[in-house]
Amino acid sequence: MPTALQQTKPAGLRERKKLRTRQDLLKVAEQLFSENEFADVTVEQIVELANVSQKTFFNYFQNKSQFLSEFIMDWLLTIGFWSFEDSPIVDCRSAIVPTDVSQTIEWIIGHRRIWKMAMQHTDFFDYIYKLDEGSDEFDPALHAAVRAHRQKRVELAQSQGLVRSDISAAEVCRLYDALRIDSVRRWLYLSDASATPEKLHELVSVCINALIQGIEVRE
Amino acid sequence: MPTALQQTKPAGLRERKKLRTRQDLLKVAEQLFSENEFADVTVEQIVELANVSQKTFFNYFQNKSQFLSEFIMDWLLTIGFWSFEDSPIVDCRSAIVPTDVSQTIEWIIGHRRIWKMAMQHTDFFDYIYKLDEGSDEFDPALHAAVRAHRQKRVELAQSQGLVRSDISAAEVCRLYDALRIDSVRRWLYLSDASATPEKLHELVSVCINALIQGIEVRE
Repeated sequence: MPTALQQTKPAGLRERKKLRTRQDLLKVAEQLFSENEFADVTVEQIVELANVSQKTFFNYFQNKSQFLSEFIMDWLLTIGFWSFEDSPIVDCRSAIVPTDVSQTIEWIIGHRRIWKMAMQHTDFFDYIYKLDEGSDEFDPALHAAVRAHRQKRVELAQSQGLVRSDISAAEVCRLYDALRIDSVRRWLYLSDASATPEKLHELVSVCINALIQGIEVRE
Repeated sequence: MPTALQQTKPAGLRERKKLRTRQDLLKVAEQLFSENEFADVTVEQIVELANVSQKTFFNYFQNKSQFLSEFIMDWLLTIGFWSFEDSPIVDCRSAIVPTDVSQTIEWIIGHRRIWKMAMQHTDFFDYIYKLDEGSDEFDPALHAAVRAHRQKRVELAQSQGLVRSDISAAEVCRLYDALRIDSVRRWLYLSDASATPEKLHELVSVCINALIQGIEVRE
């Protein structure tokens, strides 16, 4: 199997076409899963709306679960959920918390139904644990995007005395992920009446504040 | 339906007998799930080993998944995983971390196979999120055991200036649970070769140390 480096121009074109097809498929996910129960969405519906064959669908996704997971993952990558290397590092918080964190929270709030579905029917929330072991279920480039940028920022902040150096940068990132996932999961399990937008903002903020206090360098 | 307070002596006896039957059933769980794959354990085997009828099994448990969850929960309650109100509170750590935390870690290490099974086939790890909403899937007495003792200890520690008071005791407990669950889950997802006993001790200790630093009162 040729690696990315060995690919010639025609393969590059094919790659781009493949990516476009994948995007076309993912575009219909939001509509279908927003309007229907998970069990009621069929691969037949997906391929009809995306105007591709079933065979094409299964070239990209093993099943409906993976399709839903990848839709969410794709969106998180699009908004730069994990990579935000250009914002300046001025303190412990700016090293680890993306400046546009509230944009992500708003998206989760606006897509509560799809997130609950993902929690129930996919292993999206376990993605992060699988990444640790370098599972080849996932694209190595994606792995790098998820982890490397943030870890480098924390290392930089450590070298500047903004983050404690007795915890490794990798572990700091791990704690942040653990608390962030926990906040979202907790909010998803609340009844719809209790799960207000304010509640998710509050849950995330408590976690982040405690972590910042735990990892910043004491005067 | 009579409440616990309305029960007369004969009902009390019946209650005790019921508890004993439940215990007899749970006793066979460790053996069966340690020696077999989850899919290969049948309710038929369980009731045969425990010497009860299938009807009796289903009086106590909805299915095999719930049976496995309750076996683990039962064990955690037995070793006082959540309640340890008698140990003295001398600092932030002793308020929130059980003195025998390493005993629990050792049990998890010794039962890795069953825990992995629980992670894959039950909603044991989501138990904590369901508790928050006071789901009546669970016994209210258990709910109280899980949460109340620890929260009171943290409140006491706050009144003594050992734990920050700008985070509520409930939220401190929540952060501790989030990080503790994350450590275990992360260790379960590691390959068997990487998931050494030392690794779990290390994962738990990093989380606890960061939390302690984050919640203790600064000088």
